[in-house]
Amino acid sequence: MMYLTRRERFNAAHMLSNPEWDREKNEQVFGKCSNPNWHGHNYVLFVTVKGEIQPDRGWVIDLKDLSKLLKEEVIDVIDHKNINIDVPFMKDKWASTEVLCEEIWKIIQQPIKKMGATLHCVKLVETENNYVEYYG
Amino acid sequence: MMYLTRRERFNAAHMLSNPEWDREKNEQVFGKCSNPNWHGHNYVLFVTVKGEIQPDRGWVIDLKDLSKLLKEEVIDVIDHKNINIDVPFMKDKWASTEVLCEEIWKIIQQPIKKMGATLHCVKLVETENNYVEYYG
Amino acid sequence: MMYLTRRERFNAAHMLSNPEWDREKNEQVFGKCSNPNWHGHNYVLFVTVKGEIQPDRGWVIDLKDLSKLLKEEVIDVIDHKNINIDVPFMKDKWASTEVLCEEIWKIIQQPIKKMGATLHCVKLVETENNYVEYYG
Amino acid sequence: MMYLTRRERFNAAHMLSNPEWDREKNEQVFGKCSNPNWHGHNYVLFVTVKGEIQPDRGWVIDLKDLSKLLKEEVIDVIDHKNINIDVPFMKDKWASTEVLCEEIWKIIQQPIKKMGATLHCVKLVETENNYVEYYG
Amino acid sequence: MMYLTRRERFNAAHMLSNPEWDREKNEQVFGKCSNPNWHGHNYVLFVTVKGEIQPDRGWVIDLKDLSKLLKEEVIDVIDHKNINIDVPFMKDKWASTEVLCEEIWKIIQQPIKKMGATLHCVKLVETENNYVEYYG
Amino acid sequence: MMYLTRRERFNAAHMLSNPEWDREKNEQVFGKCSNPNWHGHNYVLFVTVKGEIQPDRGWVIDLKDLSKLLKEEVIDVIDHKNINIDVPFMKDKWASTEVLCEEIWKIIQQPIKKMGATLHCVKLVETENNYVEYYG
Repeated sequence: MMYLTRRERFNAAHMLSNPEWDREKNEQVFGKCSNPNWHGHNYVLFVTVKGEIQPDRGWVIDLKDLSKLLKEEVIDVIDHKNINIDVPFMKDKWASTEVLCEEIWKIIQQPIKKMGATLHCVKLVETENNYVEYYG
Repeated sequence: MMYLTRRERFNAAHMLSNPEWDREKNEQVFGKCSNPNWHGHNYVLFVTVKGEIQPDRGWVIDLKDLSKLLKEEVIDVIDHKNINIDVPFMKDKWASTEVLCEEIWKIIQQPIKKMGATLHCVKLVETENNYVEYYG
Repeated sequence: MMYLTRRERFNAAHMLSNPEWDREKNEQVFGKCSNPNWHGHNYVLFVTVKGEIQPDRGWVIDLKDLSKLLKEEVIDVIDHKNINIDVPFMKDKWASTEVLCEEIWKIIQQPIKKMGATLHCVKLVETENNYVEYYG
Repeated sequence: MMYLTRRERFNAAHMLSNPEWDREKNEQVFGKCSNPNWHGHNYVLFVTVKGEIQPDRGWVIDLKDLSKLLKEEVIDVIDHKNINIDVPFMKDKWASTEVLCEEIWKIIQQPIKKMGATLHCVKLVETENNYVEYYG
Repeated sequence: MMYLTRRERFNAAHMLSNPEWDREKNEQVFGKCSNPNWHGHNYVLFVTVKGEIQPDRGWVIDLKDLSKLLKEEVIDVIDHKNINIDVPFMKDKWASTEVLCEEIWKIIQQPIKKMGATLHCVKLVETENNYVEYYG
Repeated sequence: MMYLTRRERFNAAHMLSNPEWDREKNEQVFGKCSNPNWHGHNYVLFVTVKGEIQPDRGWVIDLKDLSKLLKEEVIDVIDHKNINIDVPFMKDKWASTEVLCEEIWKIIQQPIKKMGATLHCVKLVETENNYVEYYG
């Protein structure tokens, strides 16, 4: 079993806010992350798949296919966008790194299975000081 | 003459848009950077000052003073903010990396002189693939 | 189950030395790491916790709380210190990256449980060429 | 149980090609990676071993021993070489990152056992956008 | 005057060899870099241009144009290629980082002038331990 | 004229302290950097030389020679040492990054001239947030 990781990047705006709370409560809980005028990040996405080495190609899957999938299903949808407003798969969901990571998992799990590999981990880096990982 | 550099970071939302143009023209020129719902970045700021080594301290200036200045005058004003809306020193200015870099220069040049050094360069990194530098 | 990681940094002096051995034997085993006048490193600490996403906040735990804990219990105690001499939780222990990693685990495990998450991994980077990880 | 990682680097040329296919088929499958005149990479190797902390030394194993092993058995054999032509342990094998990673595992597993530790992971980074990991 | 830098990457094979010397002399001078079976690198290219901020756009030049130029004139020509054999603009020239850097300068200087900026610096990183810079 | 840079690293202990001041005054000026039990850093050294490309070799100077010089004259003298105590060329000098940078310049300037190049810049990185540069 071999683990293969592809890195992609996107830049997006977001804010953290619970719509059932007033602004004061949101500011108390989420601090500067709740700025109603938004802030943003350079997100870095690492997707790890596992599988056997294909005997006639020497690789687990074609990284170009994995990269194409990530670009079409994730990066093109979220890059230079507002996570809270513009991204269909984040509609009515928390625009946190944790939830974003989990939603990306849901989108790419089946397509990766069709490529002949198994999704192992989605890692999403928000800043140089924090990141989340989801293993399903 | 010794050159001393301090790195600071901030995360902010912005968009590129010429208010005299309609949205179509803005999209044609600025592409996805003109998304009216904003996007954002993890900006990295490098400020370089030059000066003589102080004979009784062994340093050009106290990096703690330089860091404090940058935090109070720049980072606290712009971190987790919307550059186009929230930042007084960017009011009615382009929210581009170039203009932001130039405006940061204007704000910190005099205070650095008062510390006994000369501002040499403001470098602002927007993504791992692009940055700007301003030398006055 | 979501995994959330916070990065912190500290700069410290240390040496590797077995007090039951003479200096020649220490030099033979630990080489330049046994310099009795000390050397030092920029250590980078990665703390990973796991837990469920909180339904009303969208995160596992508040990263500000985790950062505050790490700063108060670890960074403030060890930053700009001598690991062999100045750090109470390292008293009479090996000032190696391995032992330091294990001791940091012991200090933060319970407080992280009180935050509602489970400590998963403490990773400590000593140089760009080596690091240790402890999973309890 | 403590996990200890050492990083090493090597620069090498390679190409991806199935000798049973003609050039057109190879180009169709492997794209620019099949250039018959070769291309190359700065590979970064991370080797992780696990073991107990030695009571009289404070470490799992001596990193100098691990580094020496990696240099003699891997780096000296492959650095500034052509992976398809020059490297005995890759003879008649795919010059892919996956296979290279697996072959490095086979070479170093026993020597690491003799050092008193267990090989846990071989990670091989080919570019900033992709890497593989093998756990045996 | 503002300085704007774009980063691009390419992976290529090369060797250092003076065709007027025999192999022994080449090995004596260039060491392992003269391996006749080639080795390779992940090259990182930084191109810095300077110019005035355009009053109706807020930038010096459109980074998309600069990136397109670099991709068409440099990256597409050299990526996944053999610098000594495959690259027309390196024909009969030294495949050293220095000469490569100078030749990239010659190719992009005029097109950058046509964009309304001035080429300031071409920086080419060969490994994490060495790079060259050319200012014309 | 081509600029060529070599990176080297060393790990060392130091403290900032003016021997003519009492400990209270030192602590007031230098803060935690004045800890009398030392702290330390992973220093990163970048040395840039300039010169013409040698017509029969394609390089400015042999990087192996530059690396050997830096290792013998700087790294071997200071790595895993205490800058205030162990390093002859820092005797009776400030153990600051600024002074260290200047002293490294003095040591390597003449040997680099003998190699046929001119020392252009010594850059010394103390942490990821600060560095100094000296151009003579």
